[in-house]
Formats: sequence, structure tokens, C-alpha cells
Amino acid sequence: MNVAIVGTGVIGGSVGLAARRRLGATVRGSGPEAPRALERGAIDVACATLREAVEDADVAFVATPLGVIEETVDAVLAAAGADCVVSDVGSTKTAVVAGRDDERFVGGHPLAGSEAAGIEHAREDLFADAVWYLTPTARTSGVLYERLHRVLAGLGARPAAIDPDVHDRLMAAVSHLPHVLANVLVAQAIRAVDDGETIPATGPSFRDATRVAGANPALWPDILLGNRDALLAQLDETIARLTDVRAALAAGDRAAVTAFQEQAHAERRALLETHLGAGPTRELRIAVPNRPGVIADVALHLGRAGINISDLSLAPSPDNTQGEVGVFVPEADAERACEIIDGMGLHAT
Amino acid sequence: MNVAIVGTGVIGGSVGLAARRRLGATVRGSGPEAPRALERGAIDVACATLREAVEDADVAFVATPLGVIEETVDAVLAAAGADCVVSDVGSTKTAVVAGRDDERFVGGHPLAGSEAAGIEHAREDLFADAVWYLTPTARTSGVLYERLHRVLAGLGARPAAIDPDVHDRLMAAVSHLPHVLANVLVAQAIRAVDDGETIPATGPSFRDATRVAGANPALWPDILLGNRDALLAQLDETIARLTDVRAALAAGDRAAVTAFQEQAHAERRALLETHLGAGPTRELRIAVPNRPGVIADVALHLGRAGINISDLSLAPSPDNTQGEVGVFVPEADAERACEIIDGMGLHAT
Repeated sequence: MNVAIVGTGVIGGSVGLAARRRLGATVRGSGPEAPRALERGAIDVACATLREAVEDADVAFVATPLGVIEETVDAVLAAAGADCVVSDVGSTKTAVVAGRDDERFVGGHPLAGSEAAGIEHAREDLFADAVWYLTPTARTSGVLYERLHRVLAGLGARPAAIDPDVHDRLMAAVSHLPHVLANVLVAQAIRAVDDGETIPATGPSFRDATRVAGANPALWPDILLGNRDALLAQLDETIARLTDVRAALAAGDRAAVTAFQEQAHAERRALLETHLGAGPTRELRIAVPNRPGVIADVALHLGRAGINISDLSLAPSPDNTQGEVGVFVPEADAERACEIIDGMGLHAT
Repeated sequence: MNVAIVGTGVIGGSVGLAARRRLGATVRGSGPEAPRALERGAIDVACATLREAVEDADVAFVATPLGVIEETVDAVLAAAGADCVVSDVGSTKTAVVAGRDDERFVGGHPLAGSEAAGIEHAREDLFADAVWYLTPTARTSGVLYERLHRVLAGLGARPAAIDPDVHDRLMAAVSHLPHVLANVLVAQAIRAVDDGETIPATGPSFRDATRVAGANPALWPDILLGNRDALLAQLDETIARLTDVRAALAAGDRAAVTAFQEQAHAERRALLETHLGAGPTRELRIAVPNRPGVIADVALHLGRAGINISDLSLAPSPDNTQGEVGVFVPEADAERACEIIDGMGLHAT
């Protein structure tokens, strides 16, 4: 398999290392760090141009800084063959997906490695067991989506389909907002002591809460601005919630403060439970009409229900009018997955 | 040495385990969990009353829930001998210190073990290398303060003197506010997906940021309400800062967003640096007049300058009019510590 990587920083370089060592792929890279990526063994060939990197690729990843991702994806789609699946690794998805009407493009976002930038931080195991969001649409080619899914699983990641707007709202809530709050926390901690006093020691929970404060100032302004609308909505919600808590505290309303704490207790449990449950898997086989978007649709429906697809296979029928998809889901979710697939007018066995 | 523990939950029980095993102390405990603390080996004797636990103690710890700490400290001071140092472990200090005008009382707060309650979570090493704040005042007996400092260091903790109001402001910023924000983050993460959808997986940074969300709902409402004024001030500051960030984002002001990120980057570094530097220590010997409060004053002056006192010893002169204090500070801070002590009108060698 030929893999192209445009932008060989920490993410692109890690894709290269994993693709070479875990999949035995031939990896061609381009971009300013390509020579260093070659030295690190992250790529087989350092190409002078994007076109050279991409022309014979089966899979092409765009892993440039967020600010130039859209134009780079367009250039890669123009240079890549008709049978090449193209994906990006940007942390917001609505804009890049909305602007690309090409069956070869699937937006992507691995939840890994945003704190340290540069090829020197690339690691073969960066994606081991990490969620890698994919945003297929009705236009997406099933064959190409399945190939991308298989490659990502081969890198060690857990691909999960998600709607682009849900992805961006979710990232605003679970990544961008926490980064903003961590920044605010360190600012307030520093100012909690009088001028001229040294900051006293704090406990481990503060270190946990502020681990991402001030994360890579060269990247994060683009990330925050790139998801501006969703982040603004989250900030408004935070300000409203803090105003409510403030009122309960100011009034000495023990019942309200207790309810606030108990609700968070229950919600944290609910969030933790979604991270559990690898366990045994079952293969469901689904007969599907051979039309674009059906694979993406199945992946999205299961993704919305929180059902993880650990593997995906696709076999067209001989006359190419009908196909069969093999979907591997957790044993515990198999019944529910069948119902969801039946609800889509398909049939799973 | 006789140690009394009134309230043998996770903190009191851990003090008992460490005092017995690390200091060879005889530990008497009282309170509803005393029989279970005895079973766990955290105390030598389970007493039916606070008076029995305290009467022959050299050191008495009040480790009850926050809501009854003040009245319990008063009862312990009434029952304890003239030569017993009494401390508490409450997470706010201004009120308990302001209301106790007794040279035997030193407010305390170990930065450890607030997430799980009950004697079953007690551990001998709970305080290993943990900061244990102490709030001596001008009334505090130097002899008793030195004894408490030595006992806490013997439990494995790093005692650090701090003003009660600075302590409460600091805890509002580095503990109580982060707990409130973690609660808000889980609430928003759960609501970031549409009704009926399962919450998708999140990355490790979100788990770090929300580790304390919904911490023990039986304890935390009291902790938050107990430091209400300082926490309200922190919440107001947070709302103001978020409002500023919101405006910068809404305006697409890249320079302001970058400045925000860079400032947090620098501030996080500054905070991390205060946690570094164990290294070699030097003993400073200080001749001190034999008056109440002088030891507390030295400890507080050094504490305000961020200088950690790893050990403290006190030797009265034969005629009892003059004493000598041995203070162990990091080698790198020794010169600065001497200047501070000279600035107090004392002399360090």
C-alpha cells in the first residue's frame, strides 16, 4: 500500500512511523519537515512537491497546520488518483467537510498528540487505542471509507464515525473549553497570592486540571478560532452556569449547592461508562444496495448510538448491484446495532 | 509520644497509621469510625469520648467533617492538657483561626485525600511528600509549633506556614474553583450531543480536567460553602476573564487570543517551577527572644517568600530568656532566607 503524508509534523510523522512499521506501507511525504521525517524513518521518500507525494497513493493524509488545511486538501484532491482516499487531521470538521464535494474525501481527527508539535515528537504508538473521528457524508465512497477505516485500525486507532457539526460541538465542550478554563485557572492561581509573594505549592488535582494550560501557543489560537462558533456557545453556557452557582453560593443555598455536586457526580459516572467496554466483539453482516453513502450512513448511525465499530469490511456482489458489509461491534451492543440497522431499512445477520 | 485523633475517617485514619508506624506513637481515637479505625490498625485505643482520647495527648488532631470542626476544636482545647498542641485538618482556615485565641492551637490543612471519604481509604503514605499547610499566629507557642512541625514531617508531609486568609484565597483558586469548573465541564460535555445520542469518547485531557467533578457530594457542599467569600471572588474573576476571551474570539482577534495563550503558557511554567527544587538543604540557626509568636513569625515570613522549611528545631537557653531556632531550608534559598530573617530584626547564621 502507498500512503502519502502532506505535512510530516507530530501527527503526520506518527502516521508515517505506524504505517511503515505496522502496515508495511510505502510512505511518501512532503512539506518543510519531510527531510527530518525521512531521517527519523517516518517516511520512505521525502518529496519536493505535494503532487509527487500523492500521485500513486492509495491513502493520502493532510496533516498541515489548521490554517492551511482546506487549501491543502483541495490541492491533494486535484493531484490524487480517482481511487485514492483523502483525509485530514484537523481539529474542526464542519468547514473542511462542507467545502469538499468529492467522494474521495473523508474528514478525520485523531484524539492524540496536540500538546507537543514537530516531527521530533512523532511516535509509532501515538494512536494506540486513541479515538480517531471520521466524518463521512452521503457523498463518501463506501469502498474508500472502508479502506481508510482499515488503515486507521491498522495504525492502532479506534475509528469512529460522527457528524461534522456534532464533532465540532463536542470538541468545543471536551477540548477547546477545557483549554480555555485551564488558562483561566493558572492566571487566577498566580494572582491568588499578594504581589511579591511566591506562589505556594498546590495539590495534584490542580496540576491535573491545568495540564493543558497554555498548550502550544503556535497552534492553539488557530484551533480556538477555527471552532469559534461552537466555542462561543460553550463559553456562554459556562458563564450562565457559573452565574447560577454563584447565586446559590451567595445565598448560602445548601440544597442547590448539594444538587450541583450530586448532578456532577452522576454525570461524571455516565461519561466514564462510555469509555469502558472493549470486551468481545461480534460481526454483523449487512446486505447493502450499491449506492454511495450507505456505508457512511451505517457508520454514522452506529456512531451516534455510541457503538464502536472495531472493524469494517466490504464485499461487492459479482454483478456490482449489491454489496455486503461486515461490521464488528462489541458483543454487548450487537442486538442494539441490529435494531438500528433494521431501522434504516437494511438487514443485519 | 501520645497522639489523639478526633474523627478517624480517611484523613484522621491516615494520620493514625502513619503516626503509629512511622513515629512509633501511641494513638487514641474517638468518633463514630473509631472501632473500625482500631480494626484497621490506625489507632491503638478506640475511646468512647473525645475527652478520653485527648487527656494525655502531646498532639491532638481534629479531623471531623468541616461543619463541626470549630465546636470540636473548642471541646478538644477544653479537654487537652496545657502542653498539648491541637490542630485541625479543615480545608478553610480563616474562621477556625480567628475564633480560637489559644497558644496551643495551630490551624492545619493537608493537601491530600479529599476525594474518597471513610476509614477504608486511609493509607499510611497518604501524606508522603504532600504539602501540609499550617496557620500559626502571633499567639502560637513556639515550642508547640515546632512539635507539630516535627510530627507532620515525621508523617512524611511537607509542613508550610501560611496566613489563614492567603490560604483560603489560594484554596479558592487552586481547589474550590477547579472543582466547580470540573462540574460545569461534565455538565456541558453530556449536553454537547443531541438528546438520545450516546456521548462519544473523549480524549485523555478531558479526563484529567474533570477528575474531581462531582467529588464526594457528602463533603463538598460544606467545603464550597465554608470558603464562600473567597470562592465568590474567584467566580467573579472567572466570569470576567471568560467574558474577555469571548469578546476576543467573537471579534476574531487573533492577537488577543494568541496573547491569552502565551500568557497561560508562561504562567503554567511559573507554577510548575514552584513545585521543583527539593535538593540539598542548609541549616540556619537563629537566636530568638523567648516570646510567643516568634517561631510562627519566622515560619510565615519564609512561607510567604516560597521558602520551604524542611525541618525546624528549637532549643531554649538555660535561663529561658533566649532561644535558638534551627531552620532547614533549600541550599538555593539560604541566602535569601538569611536576608528575610535579618529584615525581621533577628540574626541567622
